[in-house]
Amino acid sequence: MLTLHFTPNTCALASLIALEESGLAFEVKRVDFASSEQRSPAYLDINPKGRVPALSTDRGVLTETPAILAYIAQVAPERRLAPLDDPFAFGQLQAFTAYLCSTVHVAHAHFRRGARWSDDPAAQETMRAKVPQNMAECFGLIEATMPAGPWAMGEAYSVADPYLFTVAGWLKPDGVDIDGFPRVAAHRARMLERPAVARALERAAG
Amino acid sequence: MLTLHFTPNTCALASLIALEESGLAFEVKRVDFASSEQRSPAYLDINPKGRVPALSTDRGVLTETPAILAYIAQVAPERRLAPLDDPFAFGQLQAFTAYLCSTVHVAHAHFRRGARWSDDPAAQETMRAKVPQNMAECFGLIEATMPAGPWAMGEAYSVADPYLFTVAGWLKPDGVDIDGFPRVAAHRARMLERPAVARALERAAG
Repeated sequence: MLTLHFTPNTCALASLIALEESGLAFEVKRVDFASSEQRSPAYLDINPKGRVPALSTDRGVLTETPAILAYIAQVAPERRLAPLDDPFAFGQLQAFTAYLCSTVHVAHAHFRRGARWSDDPAAQETMRAKVPQNMAECFGLIEATMPAGPWAMGEAYSVADPYLFTVAGWLKPDGVDIDGFPRVAAHRARMLERPAVARALERAAG
Repeated sequence: MLTLHFTPNTCALASLIALEESGLAFEVKRVDFASSEQRSPAYLDINPKGRVPALSTDRGVLTETPAILAYIAQVAPERRLAPLDDPFAFGQLQAFTAYLCSTVHVAHAHFRRGARWSDDPAAQETMRAKVPQNMAECFGLIEATMPAGPWAMGEAYSVADPYLFTVAGWLKPDGVDIDGFPRVAAHRARMLERPAVARALERAAG
């Protein structure tokens, strides 16, 4: 049995949607950031990084969204959630998820998590001020380089799609208008029509 | 033919070492950061992100170190540079490379690249001041969670090793003593004994 350690309004939503798409049996355990549960000894035993998502499996725990997404695609191959037999196409998918985690998520994190990188509240404020510009630049690049669609990697739906959907959901709170990125906006609308996305959002809210 | 777009003293070293380990035919093209070649129209045609590494293949260009490393492992399967037939073990490797790119590289980047996240020189200075603490925390986690070795993922050498070697090489310039992390230091020494690492370092310097 798979258990996703999950907190609403985090990048863990991408893994939750991917699990809903996978047809795999799984359960969700909420990690309560409000009470700093992610820093509790019990949770640090699961994920010493003190972050979500983490995916408990029969073999042990996996962390990091790109790793969890590729794993889900690999253990549910009949759902074709990644081009598993094409190293180049798989590499393109992985380049996309690596960009989301290392650049776009990081750009976003400077809004509320500036204390990770500076102890000075005034400096954190200057980071926050730059977030809309950085998020707009990131999504400008995504818009310019993503295939015509309908999905993030082109014709085939993949685990890249829940991740793009999740990160694009941060544009509004970060003060950026998604309508400046028509492909990204259309992708978001398309995702909202998928039953797996609706199920994940309902779980996330419930 | 593979072409690695490479700049010395960057994370592109990880891909260069992995290529040397792979036995694949490849060439290296240097991207001159001193003249901002990474922002030239010719290079932006190759990688619109304006970063290294980028790997040109017969199918197109791949970017992002974790994606390039997994690709190299997949197209040189006889070298066994990743546990390609074990989704969980592959997921562990990917969790490690994702952590290096999204957390450790980002911690390091606040030393010289603070302008990415704040326009204020004083704020950038406060980021720089925190880099040794953040890098030490990251490597504390790596030291505590990495297998006994000899390699980053345990018994088997993999593409995770060049990446760990590359990022651990930033500890000294970031003001952190690698000897505080005995497993990481031993890993570094072990890597320096590998002919492929020596060839890559010679190419990087040449």
